[in-house]
Amino acid sequence: MIIFFSSSGKKTFLIHLIILFSLLTSKIYSQDKDEYITITKKIVSSALTEQKGYDWLRELCEIGPRLSGSENSIRAIKWAEEKMKGLGLDVWLQPVMVPHWVRGEKEEAAIIESEFLEGRELEILALGRSIGTDEDGITAQVIEVKNFDELKEKKNKVKDKIVFFSRALDPGTLNTFQGYGDAVDQRSLGAIEAAKYGAVGVLIRSVTTKYDNVPHIGAMSNYVDTLPKIPGAAIGYTDAHFLSETLKKDPNLKVNMKLNCKTFPDILSYNVIADLKGTEKPDEIIIAAGHFDSWDTGCGAHDDGSGCIQALEVLDLFKRLSIKPKRTIRCIFYINEENGVRGGIEYGLYADTTKEKHIAAIESDRGVFTPEGFNVTSDSSTLIKIQSWLPVLEYAGIEWIKTGGSGVDISKIKNAKALISFVPDDQRYFDVHHSANDVFEEVHPREMEVGAAAIAMFAYLLSEEL
Amino acid sequence: MIIFFSSSGKKTFLIHLIILFSLLTSKIYSQDKDEYITITKKIVSSALTEQKGYDWLRELCEIGPRLSGSENSIRAIKWAEEKMKGLGLDVWLQPVMVPHWVRGEKEEAAIIESEFLEGRELEILALGRSIGTDEDGITAQVIEVKNFDELKEKKNKVKDKIVFFSRALDPGTLNTFQGYGDAVDQRSLGAIEAAKYGAVGVLIRSVTTKYDNVPHIGAMSNYVDTLPKIPGAAIGYTDAHFLSETLKKDPNLKVNMKLNCKTFPDILSYNVIADLKGTEKPDEIIIAAGHFDSWDTGCGAHDDGSGCIQALEVLDLFKRLSIKPKRTIRCIFYINEENGVRGGIEYGLYADTTKEKHIAAIESDRGVFTPEGFNVTSDSSTLIKIQSWLPVLEYAGIEWIKTGGSGVDISKIKNAKALISFVPDDQRYFDVHHSANDVFEEVHPREMEVGAAAIAMFAYLLSEEL
Repeated sequence: MIIFFSSSGKKTFLIHLIILFSLLTSKIYSQDKDEYITITKKIVSSALTEQKGYDWLRELCEIGPRLSGSENSIRAIKWAEEKMKGLGLDVWLQPVMVPHWVRGEKEEAAIIESEFLEGRELEILALGRSIGTDEDGITAQVIEVKNFDELKEKKNKVKDKIVFFSRALDPGTLNTFQGYGDAVDQRSLGAIEAAKYGAVGVLIRSVTTKYDNVPHIGAMSNYVDTLPKIPGAAIGYTDAHFLSETLKKDPNLKVNMKLNCKTFPDILSYNVIADLKGTEKPDEIIIAAGHFDSWDTGCGAHDDGSGCIQALEVLDLFKRLSIKPKRTIRCIFYINEENGVRGGIEYGLYADTTKEKHIAAIESDRGVFTPEGFNVTSDSSTLIKIQSWLPVLEYAGIEWIKTGGSGVDISKIKNAKALISFVPDDQRYFDVHHSANDVFEEVHPREMEVGAAAIAMFAYLLSEEL
Repeated sequence: MIIFFSSSGKKTFLIHLIILFSLLTSKIYSQDKDEYITITKKIVSSALTEQKGYDWLRELCEIGPRLSGSENSIRAIKWAEEKMKGLGLDVWLQPVMVPHWVRGEKEEAAIIESEFLEGRELEILALGRSIGTDEDGITAQVIEVKNFDELKEKKNKVKDKIVFFSRALDPGTLNTFQGYGDAVDQRSLGAIEAAKYGAVGVLIRSVTTKYDNVPHIGAMSNYVDTLPKIPGAAIGYTDAHFLSETLKKDPNLKVNMKLNCKTFPDILSYNVIADLKGTEKPDEIIIAAGHFDSWDTGCGAHDDGSGCIQALEVLDLFKRLSIKPKRTIRCIFYINEENGVRGGIEYGLYADTTKEKHIAAIESDRGVFTPEGFNVTSDSSTLIKIQSWLPVLEYAGIEWIKTGGSGVDISKIKNAKALISFVPDDQRYFDVHHSANDVFEEVHPREMEVGAAAIAMFAYLLSEEL
């Protein structure tokens, strides 16, 4: 029995019919395809053999984390500018005003006060954008909920308490981005939802696939002016479990929570932009991008230092292999994706007004694991054209090209023909995401370099064929 | 310009035509497909959430390496038998006589003697099946060659020397199995080829993608009776580079090479076999397999303890989810894949004579990284049928099903409809393969468990649909 099927059977039928039609009607360019495959193999071989991007990432990670507005982020921007100039590229620092949130220097703490325990400390880190507490911190009873529905059900018990959102990223979900998406609302909106019912603070279980005790942070949504602002922090996964178990024994336990974080006025920062000028159409732009800011723990190796480095390596691969795209290939290290997207917005405004024509953009911001495919936002005829390149891109490890959302930074570019997200394997990403685990040693050189090669070849095809 | 193309364009056209034809002529079983997808999701969720196989692998790795014929391998076999019985499975230890090669207890050594250096020791390990040296070792000049062609060109300079095969796994090759295949002849046949021209020993650069100094070993081919038997050892990658550089300065340097390895008479061991009996056709067999022996360094975590554990978890997933396949699902831990394939051969003989009917077999022996696809050896109509299951297997992370070679152990089963190799991502495999790097910590729980789920669902489809 062949298990084809009705509903998506129709879809499958249609797809194959379209492909057949394309095959029947399109011109057949055997020579071009062979040339592109030859170029792909050269790019892959050079990336994997020289591993230049991997070496650059090591240098970058030695600078440390790159939170928007931090001195370190400016140090990293200078490093990037020098690196790009050293590669012989045209470099532009685009000014961007960014939020300036700081964790503060004093230690953050959350200590359980219970008749069963003597001052057991929980491993926490304040969430991005959170307000701090005063020096004595907040001391309050804790109410545990899994989600906003349960919060609403228990709304009469929330006043003057710390709300503990204990929902875990569902490990049974194959696609970890989906699992993350299903759990992350407690981080982004927990403090706002809890404030509605009079809570004084929130603690959330880290949204991660790794069962260690390292807190995974990230941005809270902006506070709502009509509600009290209350502080929020992430607890390590295992300490979240411990708190949950302890609450079963002692529902009246209190937690003392101290945060020193603070938001200063916006501060000047930069998108770092490098061009490899097109030989025939220098005013038509193909972008390869990542975001250069990170959280202030770990060094933002996967998120997203290595995505930026891949984008830069695209340009260097063309230079070192004497490949001369007819359109300009532009590398952008966007600033402030994590807590504001100010870099993306600023470049989007530039793209609206420049005489340059933005043809397409690729963003790498899902870690740098072994490539799987590309998500494309475009009209359907552009998609079909791009999908016809798969037999070339397969030589760079690409399995598929599908309709899907692009990166958040490049999504601010209007009128491009295609906005594209690089999609690598996702099984290990949320082990490290937004945490002290996100360090250079977690990046595998071959996995990163194959990705750089795949993005480079895609950018080249976009330049020459779209 | 759409870059479709002539030669493989025709092939693509044909494939889509066949698929279209299948879609038009096949019965449409929407309900079955939906049910299979539901089962797939359950299996994936259970594997990823419970991570039982990962816990078993930790236990197995604590036993240590499992070289064929070693006491440790018997300890591991007992552990496996107990584990399988504990899961409520029917267990059979199939006796197999295996080679009994031992490294010996004294330290192996290769020391450079040169006017430029005072006794610089190289990091080496004897290759499997190698003879040892006497207590003083072999002291000889070294001649470096990249391959057998160069060896032949230099054949007049080889007599009484140690031949140093210094070819590296080409890092520029995307498919690491291909890179490995292109370089591994120096390990398997180097001692035989060098002996033809009077060499007294061989040293080979480790065939690896990792630039550390850990020797990667593996089997030499059986010695040829008509040629002198000479010893062979693998050098760590960076020490191979050092030896090569030192030879440029001092072409007359000597190396003193001491190996204590020895081959004893064949010894009794076992394939470990567990059955989950089929509800309707208990004499029709679907196999899930790995090989249980490893090399004697590291603990054979990826190669291939975890492949065995995945096979065992297939049966346990069915039990814990109350899935009752109509055919018998048989898990085999083959012994002695690494240096003899005696377990594979022995089971093949059994399969030839038993009244049981072997329908299909899946082997996992390429590491346990994120799944990519399955290679299938079958006739073309079986392949098309199996490929029609892809829309179900995609829910277990499977991207493709292609014609390709199966595992070496299951290849000894004649007359099965399909022999299948599980193919995960290969970028990290040769970092650890056959070396002290191949330890539990290199296995990622999610990557391993998704693979177990994919193999389980494939085995279930083979049972119900083939």
